[in-house]
Amino acid sequence: MGEQTSYSLSEAVSENTSGIELSYYTQSEFNKVTQASISKKDKAILFADLARYNTLYMIAKAGSGHLGSSFSSMDIVTWIYLNILKESDRYFSSKGHDAPGLYSIQTALNILPFEKIHQLRRLNGLTGHPDVHTPGSHTNTGSLGMGVSKAKGFIYGDNFFNEKNSEVFVLTGDGELQEGHFWESLVSLANRPTNRITVIVDHNKIQSDTYVKDVSDLGDLEAKFKAFGWDVLKIDGHDIDIIDSSLASRKDRTKPLAIIADTIKGKGVSFMEHTSMDSEQEYYAYHSGAPNLEEYNKACKEISSRIETFSNSLGISLDSAANIVIEPISAPKNAEKMIPAYAEAILNLAEKNNIVALDADLVLDTGLIPFKDKFPDRFIECGIAEQDMVSQAGTIALTGLIPIVHSFACFLVTRAAEQIYNNASQKGKVIYVGSLAGILPAGPGHSHQSVRDFTCMLGMPGMTIIEPVNANQVALALKWAVENNSESTYIRLTSIPFQQTELLHSIDTLDHGKGEVLNPGKDITLITYGPIFSFIAGEVAEILKNNDISLNIISTPWINKIDLGWLEEVIGETKMIVTLENHYTESGVGSLYIANMASAGLLMNKKTLNIGIEELPQCGRNEEVLEYHGLTAKQIAERIIIKFNG
Amino acid sequence: MGEQTSYSLSEAVSENTSGIELSYYTQSEFNKVTQASISKKDKAILFADLARYNTLYMIAKAGSGHLGSSFSSMDIVTWIYLNILKESDRYFSSKGHDAPGLYSIQTALNILPFEKIHQLRRLNGLTGHPDVHTPGSHTNTGSLGMGVSKAKGFIYGDNFFNEKNSEVFVLTGDGELQEGHFWESLVSLANRPTNRITVIVDHNKIQSDTYVKDVSDLGDLEAKFKAFGWDVLKIDGHDIDIIDSSLASRKDRTKPLAIIADTIKGKGVSFMEHTSMDSEQEYYAYHSGAPNLEEYNKACKEISSRIETFSNSLGISLDSAANIVIEPISAPKNAEKMIPAYAEAILNLAEKNNIVALDADLVLDTGLIPFKDKFPDRFIECGIAEQDMVSQAGTIALTGLIPIVHSFACFLVTRAAEQIYNNASQKGKVIYVGSLAGILPAGPGHSHQSVRDFTCMLGMPGMTIIEPVNANQVALALKWAVENNSESTYIRLTSIPFQQTELLHSIDTLDHGKGEVLNPGKDITLITYGPIFSFIAGEVAEILKNNDISLNIISTPWINKIDLGWLEEVIGETKMIVTLENHYTESGVGSLYIANMASAGLLMNKKTLNIGIEELPQCGRNEEVLEYHGLTAKQIAERIIIKFNG
Repeated sequence: MGEQTSYSLSEAVSENTSGIELSYYTQSEFNKVTQASISKKDKAILFADLARYNTLYMIAKAGSGHLGSSFSSMDIVTWIYLNILKESDRYFSSKGHDAPGLYSIQTALNILPFEKIHQLRRLNGLTGHPDVHTPGSHTNTGSLGMGVSKAKGFIYGDNFFNEKNSEVFVLTGDGELQEGHFWESLVSLANRPTNRITVIVDHNKIQSDTYVKDVSDLGDLEAKFKAFGWDVLKIDGHDIDIIDSSLASRKDRTKPLAIIADTIKGKGVSFMEHTSMDSEQEYYAYHSGAPNLEEYNKACKEISSRIETFSNSLGISLDSAANIVIEPISAPKNAEKMIPAYAEAILNLAEKNNIVALDADLVLDTGLIPFKDKFPDRFIECGIAEQDMVSQAGTIALTGLIPIVHSFACFLVTRAAEQIYNNASQKGKVIYVGSLAGILPAGPGHSHQSVRDFTCMLGMPGMTIIEPVNANQVALALKWAVENNSESTYIRLTSIPFQQTELLHSIDTLDHGKGEVLNPGKDITLITYGPIFSFIAGEVAEILKNNDISLNIISTPWINKIDLGWLEEVIGETKMIVTLENHYTESGVGSLYIANMASAGLLMNKKTLNIGIEELPQCGRNEEVLEYHGLTAKQIAERIIIKFNG
Repeated sequence: MGEQTSYSLSEAVSENTSGIELSYYTQSEFNKVTQASISKKDKAILFADLARYNTLYMIAKAGSGHLGSSFSSMDIVTWIYLNILKESDRYFSSKGHDAPGLYSIQTALNILPFEKIHQLRRLNGLTGHPDVHTPGSHTNTGSLGMGVSKAKGFIYGDNFFNEKNSEVFVLTGDGELQEGHFWESLVSLANRPTNRITVIVDHNKIQSDTYVKDVSDLGDLEAKFKAFGWDVLKIDGHDIDIIDSSLASRKDRTKPLAIIADTIKGKGVSFMEHTSMDSEQEYYAYHSGAPNLEEYNKACKEISSRIETFSNSLGISLDSAANIVIEPISAPKNAEKMIPAYAEAILNLAEKNNIVALDADLVLDTGLIPFKDKFPDRFIECGIAEQDMVSQAGTIALTGLIPIVHSFACFLVTRAAEQIYNNASQKGKVIYVGSLAGILPAGPGHSHQSVRDFTCMLGMPGMTIIEPVNANQVALALKWAVENNSESTYIRLTSIPFQQTELLHSIDTLDHGKGEVLNPGKDITLITYGPIFSFIAGEVAEILKNNDISLNIISTPWINKIDLGWLEEVIGETKMIVTLENHYTESGVGSLYIANMASAGLLMNKKTLNIGIEELPQCGRNEEVLEYHGLTAKQIAERIIIKFNG
């Protein structure tokens, strides 16, 4: 699930103003392979390497993506697409990380327009995780563990009124099998057996952070599937002959088949293969993110020389990969980051507080490595098991300690909504820290863009929700949650590096229920929170100023505990209230603030306008997605002006 | 999980104005047994029967409760309390249904004040499902599958800073093991093994509706636990010697122990034992609810005569059970019900629409039996597996059918919040039907009182939320969702029989975005929804009328799709807007309506007041719980008057 929000490729070339050179194999090279008179096996091997090369290109160009699992599953997925699927059949990846690998195959086979390979993680391009609006993507994945349930729905649905004879092939991760939903989905097949569902476990041993066995060992996977009533085969997931025969065996079965495919994460590029990690190396480097330019070039060379050698030996003459110069992605200059601030804050607070940190396989993304290293006895690695993590935290709190639960906001809040509520219903305080919050980064797509976490959290009795505006407030928020708040707290964090004004950067207080007046103004009050929109609000003020409208900007970290007396004071005589937020408006701060202000009599004769996310977030580069949703400073200013003058 | 909202005992005696006679064993009789010089085994057998008798009393008096599993687990739980638990140890039931059985033991042993046996499911009494505010209840349960996670939290917490040597004993149901959270919770013990957690599966073969094997077969449970790395024993859960030896064996182990206890649901009263069901009988009758008077008396007689015979044989002279006369619970007269209307509506619509119904082990409560009987090929029994159910529905929708998903609102929405969001993010419409919605019935307690379902549902793109006001609108809402709405719908249903005025009863339209003006008035507009508060609103209007305030009542089934033009018209010149709701106010209609009205300019110069649930719902009888939360007509009227005049 990891989504390292680095800009490694672009950072490596940020000095290079003339762009950087990448390369890919054109579709005609794939066609030469598929049309060649060679064995199915040789075809699959060669095709898979071409697809690996293009996957590398797509991820390098996008600046992020999941290389490791795209490569580990490539041989299997290639075989399925070249030799197994009938028109009525469906293949999808339950984990969805490996989307770039899948796209590289689908573009080569005209399931997707070939030119889409240039559009990974771009608006109207190929989404970071699968989305049904992309041709060939059958269902939305990216949130883990749902694959078999989805397969059952397809198979049952196809057969309720018509005998469609369809089959479903589901690829799962191995770390993904830590999710309870996966095991839940296996149970009911006992009462509705079918051999039309085949699960292939891409057992590449490495999950987001490190080895599955170290995170939360899956034990005897074969025995587990068997105990749940499935047929099971364990195979070498890079041996084409065995991939072929194991898949073929499904036809003779009465039960669903699970193929546990032993694979190598990063397979096909020697230094990316997990088996090349030395014994000292704790974390795998190519799960998400993008390689730097040196790594990119080295990997290309390795794959292309293998392609050249093998194609020559088969008598196929392939053209070299086509070169293309791309503009580097511009990372914000002097950007501020919250996760390192959080990492430091929890370390400091742990010195004198009985803190226990719980993680769901995201130590690299949530800043927990220093804590884990310094306080191993107070660190619980739960694996990809948010429900389990949250419920454990609830009873740890009852033993008198202070559990702090970590994951991406999108998974923490809604995968464990019932468990958080259960904790909220009993004594004991739990601190929830949700990172990767909000619509940005927009590259991973809507499974990861958390613009709905307030929705659930607002229904938790006693929960205080805080979104810090800068790194200083990250530390202050955690300190308040640990040392001052007697109830539970949800701290919502931005994971991308973000631009700041000097004023925003300098905020170093956290007064209960209050925020900051960033820009005193007399016409309109704009209430916002968090770093990204607090910054944009400043740009909006500039535009409004040029239109002779004076904007009063209030930024507050207190999402649901606002001091209405203070608010009354700071909104003064302004004639309109605008809320601006990094969340769905109807279930976010917009509704909450306006309702509370109305009830307190603060809206008499004032217009109101709620601006935020109003539909499913788009995938793309951050700037283009903000624009799509009408959230650039210019667009926001226009909406405000129309309402103000209307 | 079932919560049949019948009033069987009280209905049976509703003609009996002089009250009905129940009986229970006093604490001194329990003391005679615990202090007797008899074997531990005989003590446990006799104590368990006394406790069964008092459990029966508690449930009969409360009018509801879970007899079947209280009885099946009684021998095991008695043994644990009499012989196993040290002071630092914890026992709890993960399913929590069996709370009455547990309370009967705890009151006998002074863990709870004995007089609490008269207060099951009453305000400040003993909650319907366990709550930490009750002495001896270690954690809140009732929402299924969380037990092992909670046990891990206790054990790890106890040991992070101090070596407490505590142990945790967790009872689980068998149907409960269909929940994915349960299997998720087992995984991580591989990396943090402990023998301080012992799980006893109350394997009584019957879940809420019927046989576990027919709902969603668990298959080889022993193999499953073993595959997940646990030690396993399979025992007769009513054989005290074996209960003793199997529990004792935990000390010599290095891994956690699962004891699969074969038990009989309803054990101890012959006609309640599931083994007495004849082969034609599909549904078990004593899972939840209360027995009728005849059944009650028959059961008492059977238990008491066994107690008499056995105590005499042991030379213990026990007094007879003490008699007590209780007032029957008053069921509303001529009450209207939604579930039968729903049962008829889905049956009718299925004739000409490609509907598929999915259920999570609640056909008795959700009205699906007629559908299941008539369209068995379009019915999917998912078992207690809401995540799996919802994800299946999502892909069934993609095959072109119309899946309708059923459960209690409390479980459907928040256990599957992530899966509902995933469905909402892809094409295809799904209809979600959540029953047992709102604060009433208040007897089951906060795990079942769904006053937070809008919270999650408001964050689902494209979702229309409807709460019908009467039986007519149940049918109209489903018809609209099936035949007219192209996107997904959430229909929220009241499960208790409810009082209606003639006007409320007669509503038989469902105009998109609009509602009904129930009581035109000129001073204040009260906006509400659903049958219970639409009725109470009428009572509020009467009180206000006596205070010369004219209340304009608007009741609308459209929770999040309100026609603001219509609303502007019907609120007219009223000077204040009150929202009244069966949900948390901050994350409910209160905030949503006020924000939308403010934005549309409908609140200029108007006061607002949001009334609804503001803290965790209390357990108790419906009337006393409404009063606790300030939601009687009188209390509501007072709040309105103060605000109006203030």
